[in-house]
Amino acid sequence: MHLSEITHPNQLHGLSIRQLEDIARQIREKHLQTIATSGGHLGPGLGVVELTIALYQTLDLDRDKVVWDVGHQAYPHKMLTGRYNRFHTLRQKDGIAGYLKRCENKFDHFGAGHASTSISAALGMALARDAKGEDYKCVAVIGDGALTGGMALEAINHAGHLPNTNLMVILNDNEMSISPNVGAISRYLNKVRLSDPIQFLSDNLEEQFKHLPFFGDSLTPEMERVKEGMKRLAVPKVGAVIEELGFKYFGPIDGHNLQELISTFKQAHKVTGPVLVHVATVKGKGYAIAEKDQVGYHAQSPFNLATGKAIPSNKPKPPSYAKVFTHTLTKLAENNPKIIGITAAMATGTGLDKLQQKLPKQYIDVGIAEQHAVTLSAGLACEGMRPLVAIYSTFLQRAYDQIIHDICIQNLPVFFCMDRAGIVGADGPTHQGMYDIAYLRCIPNMVIMAPKDEAELQRMIVTGIDHTDSPIAMRYPRGNGVGVPLMEEGWEAIEIGKGEILRNGDDVLLLGYGTMVHPALQVAEILSEHGIEATVVNARFVKPLDTELILPLAQRIGKVVTMEEGCLMGGFGSAVTEALQDNNVLVPVKRFGIPDILVDHAEPNQSKADLGLTSSQMAENILKAYFPTKQASVVS
Amino acid sequence: MHLSEITHPNQLHGLSIRQLEDIARQIREKHLQTIATSGGHLGPGLGVVELTIALYQTLDLDRDKVVWDVGHQAYPHKMLTGRYNRFHTLRQKDGIAGYLKRCENKFDHFGAGHASTSISAALGMALARDAKGEDYKCVAVIGDGALTGGMALEAINHAGHLPNTNLMVILNDNEMSISPNVGAISRYLNKVRLSDPIQFLSDNLEEQFKHLPFFGDSLTPEMERVKEGMKRLAVPKVGAVIEELGFKYFGPIDGHNLQELISTFKQAHKVTGPVLVHVATVKGKGYAIAEKDQVGYHAQSPFNLATGKAIPSNKPKPPSYAKVFTHTLTKLAENNPKIIGITAAMATGTGLDKLQQKLPKQYIDVGIAEQHAVTLSAGLACEGMRPLVAIYSTFLQRAYDQIIHDICIQNLPVFFCMDRAGIVGADGPTHQGMYDIAYLRCIPNMVIMAPKDEAELQRMIVTGIDHTDSPIAMRYPRGNGVGVPLMEEGWEAIEIGKGEILRNGDDVLLLGYGTMVHPALQVAEILSEHGIEATVVNARFVKPLDTELILPLAQRIGKVVTMEEGCLMGGFGSAVTEALQDNNVLVPVKRFGIPDILVDHAEPNQSKADLGLTSSQMAENILKAYFPTKQASVVS
Repeated sequence: MHLSEITHPNQLHGLSIRQLEDIARQIREKHLQTIATSGGHLGPGLGVVELTIALYQTLDLDRDKVVWDVGHQAYPHKMLTGRYNRFHTLRQKDGIAGYLKRCENKFDHFGAGHASTSISAALGMALARDAKGEDYKCVAVIGDGALTGGMALEAINHAGHLPNTNLMVILNDNEMSISPNVGAISRYLNKVRLSDPIQFLSDNLEEQFKHLPFFGDSLTPEMERVKEGMKRLAVPKVGAVIEELGFKYFGPIDGHNLQELISTFKQAHKVTGPVLVHVATVKGKGYAIAEKDQVGYHAQSPFNLATGKAIPSNKPKPPSYAKVFTHTLTKLAENNPKIIGITAAMATGTGLDKLQQKLPKQYIDVGIAEQHAVTLSAGLACEGMRPLVAIYSTFLQRAYDQIIHDICIQNLPVFFCMDRAGIVGADGPTHQGMYDIAYLRCIPNMVIMAPKDEAELQRMIVTGIDHTDSPIAMRYPRGNGVGVPLMEEGWEAIEIGKGEILRNGDDVLLLGYGTMVHPALQVAEILSEHGIEATVVNARFVKPLDTELILPLAQRIGKVVTMEEGCLMGGFGSAVTEALQDNNVLVPVKRFGIPDILVDHAEPNQSKADLGLTSSQMAENILKAYFPTKQASVVS
Repeated sequence: MHLSEITHPNQLHGLSIRQLEDIARQIREKHLQTIATSGGHLGPGLGVVELTIALYQTLDLDRDKVVWDVGHQAYPHKMLTGRYNRFHTLRQKDGIAGYLKRCENKFDHFGAGHASTSISAALGMALARDAKGEDYKCVAVIGDGALTGGMALEAINHAGHLPNTNLMVILNDNEMSISPNVGAISRYLNKVRLSDPIQFLSDNLEEQFKHLPFFGDSLTPEMERVKEGMKRLAVPKVGAVIEELGFKYFGPIDGHNLQELISTFKQAHKVTGPVLVHVATVKGKGYAIAEKDQVGYHAQSPFNLATGKAIPSNKPKPPSYAKVFTHTLTKLAENNPKIIGITAAMATGTGLDKLQQKLPKQYIDVGIAEQHAVTLSAGLACEGMRPLVAIYSTFLQRAYDQIIHDICIQNLPVFFCMDRAGIVGADGPTHQGMYDIAYLRCIPNMVIMAPKDEAELQRMIVTGIDHTDSPIAMRYPRGNGVGVPLMEEGWEAIEIGKGEILRNGDDVLLLGYGTMVHPALQVAEILSEHGIEATVVNARFVKPLDTELILPLAQRIGKVVTMEEGCLMGGFGSAVTEALQDNNVLVPVKRFGIPDILVDHAEPNQSKADLGLTSSQMAENILKAYFPTKQASVVS
């Protein structure tokens, strides 16, 4: 049977193990081809091919619900639910999404791009099922990495307390999040994975008792208790913690053995109440290069399948912001032992792995646990360290109360470095870093800044480290810098709350924030071609806003434009509008940014064009709004 | 020794058990007197009197750090750290805060008002200590209720993985959060608390072995293993889960026995690595009435010490928003089995306990686990239920990513009901519900509304339940309604995005949101006395904003005022300002709301006066800004 013929997962029901193995082989082939060609998450999907097939063999997906945590482990799921023929469009504009989306496919029962949400969602579905008096199955598939997220533990705590609510949690244990897992739970699971001898002892205990002179056929009640106790001694070693939390435990089972998976799932489906099936998988399974380098092959840009090597891009690019960030930070940290870099399971993504290699004592990875990362930093700051929390804009949302309650209310000097702020591209709506300006701006004591390019990023790192009066946050984008010259040392801090004028002109005032400053300069060039001269300001700080600089310019020039790579509601432009009103400067403000919509996956430049944020589009709109008579001649 | 003589906790060092018991008695006396007179948290403090004394007897608080979770259990701590003489000012303006604040006292090593943060903070301090090469002790004291918060579990996961980082966690186990605890962890702890027989078995196991014929003096290695196994069978039953997570476990110990506490703490201080001391306490200990009704006496308004009865206020008050909320909701839920009310350990505070009593199947308490509460609701919504999440404005911050990632991105119809939105009074900065308008407004798909009074609250409950096109959020304040007539049934939904005109006038446009609508009417009256006629609009929705209504009025009247009980940065007034700019209506806007500062504890009316938000203050400021010639005659 060819994979392309499977349009409904229930078609797996009748197949033999050999046929299923063949399906598995086809999934791997397609998966590898697709990722090698267009890039995407490689290791997670390869690890759950058999798990997915076996699970769907034992479920009726017209009724049963499956919630895949994070979603990047769900590529096999996508291929088995009617998306094989479009799978080559993965993560491309208008193509298949890289994560799960309820609006993409009816078998995507719950969307996800962030970790640790699946058990909560599946439990919600299970409680709804029971309230309605129905009886389908609800399954969450969660990785051991995602299990370190507090929310997953909250859900386990709740589910384990509901002995009559049927819920299956499949723990996809590959001993990794993106990086090797940290934490006591991971260590415990590892111990369980290696616990075969005890399992064996337990299986054979009854047998062994017969050969022990002390245990006869008829025991006193007391001896019976000792015997039962001895059995419990052995058996619950495997999964004891999980059983104490109210879950029936199955495992650990081999996640690449279809027969074992199917028979275990079938058994586990019969259990009343919450059940956890512990599946030991290998990240990258079936592609030897990825099995060997599980961190490197978690996700990949296009690469050569035979060698595993990335296909070099045609022209040299400026270094990425993340690279400049980590290089600069590491240099500074070498001379300042108080600097501690904290990541929440994003060592490679944030670049902090370089800090770890050079200065392991000044590096902390707390696992997928953003809340803990932030409040841990508060504790570090209380005792005089200089904690620098490197969390993507989208993931910092997970620690919002900690930022308010533990950092800002106490006014502790913690430095937030938000990578992936703005449009992120192929990862889509769950990962857009578009809310941070709005959600941080409303918190007292917070200083918020964004560099216009990678050279200013270097200066802002120094700025953030030097600033001990309050918390401070810096946002910077995914991807490469603009190509400006970089310094190897001697970076100067920027005065807090001070913007800069980059260009002078009397016709219109362009206020750029972060990544939109260079486009603002380009817009000014286009406008100049139409006889309109713009003043361009690099705002640098959205809080405190440089009103000393901005207000007189706005008053004098009379036409204001703001440009930001973030949501318009409550963002940078909103801050400018507020400041003008509060200071009785009544001039028009045209705001460019992300309107009140979700931004789908696409190349960042495509997304920006869709949002009207290219330089030529903005120039055209400025002309239309402010200089309608000059507009006729513009071509984008 | 009189308690008033203790100005430094180290003064406890030399005292005998009898002297310490006397101190405990004095603390209880002062605690009860103060709460009976001015109100505050009663049960939590009474439960930790001996724990606090014993802990401080074994620490040097000039060096060692103690982080108290939540802070409302820290009243004994306050009395032992130089605040006895001012303790009668508790929770009053300019008096002692009801929670912990680093700026209040040098022994408040970490502030807290929200739960579950202490282990993260203490671990941060411990890591800083080790980085600096110092050797003081770091202790977190956390209740079993707070332990259900995912963040605490994230911290345990991290700490348990650091065998060389000395950290003591004291689990103050009173089997309660505010309400009785829910969840598997709580059940497990309860089992441990009741586990004396097994403990006994373990203690005596070696002895018992001697009497068993099978176990002789010289055993084969295999038999030795069986014997050791049998011992482990018994011993780790107590605290096994905790030990598997990398913590040394001490307990459970009697939290009201000073001798036992002191000797256990001393022992535990000697341990290398993370250690957990499990202390069994009684909430409300020493005050029989509170011991019997632990939910009712978690916190109290002024009451009669002899009877425990609340002292009735002088004049009858309108019902509280919470009461109207739960009454209306329960009525609606009776006729709609799809409605499910979800709370995160705030059954009494939100009023959902009334729903629980009437319709227990339509009620879920997930414990202190706001993230899980929100995503659980997403799961419920996926399966056709009408989940209504009742979480205070300040606590909803803890589920921010879940609102974005699980609810809004998937556009699921979940109804957020945010009690305690706006100024909360005596609870202070950690509890002010001042950020929700700003942090919710920037998320696509969210509808956001606030009723002007308790009658409109009833209609908005219907509105929220009827609205299945998207998520919807409603904010309403702490305390009593304004006293308008209520309906017993037949409430009509309000059209989404539609405000209403309450008063007409040509001189100034007053836009009120939520609780500020009635003050806006009062302001209009005052202005009218000065010959200025205001149009007053009840905006009802901040998103979608009723631009159809507002823009023509603003254009025509030319002077706009916005009024909200929330932060000005990014709030309702900001939304109005944005809308006017986006639609080329260039008129001045004066915004009233909470400026960019933290708001300390005080009576709500005192806070509002401090912020210039009383009707007379606002009227005066409007005159000053817009009608300076009319201003002379105003007296507030």
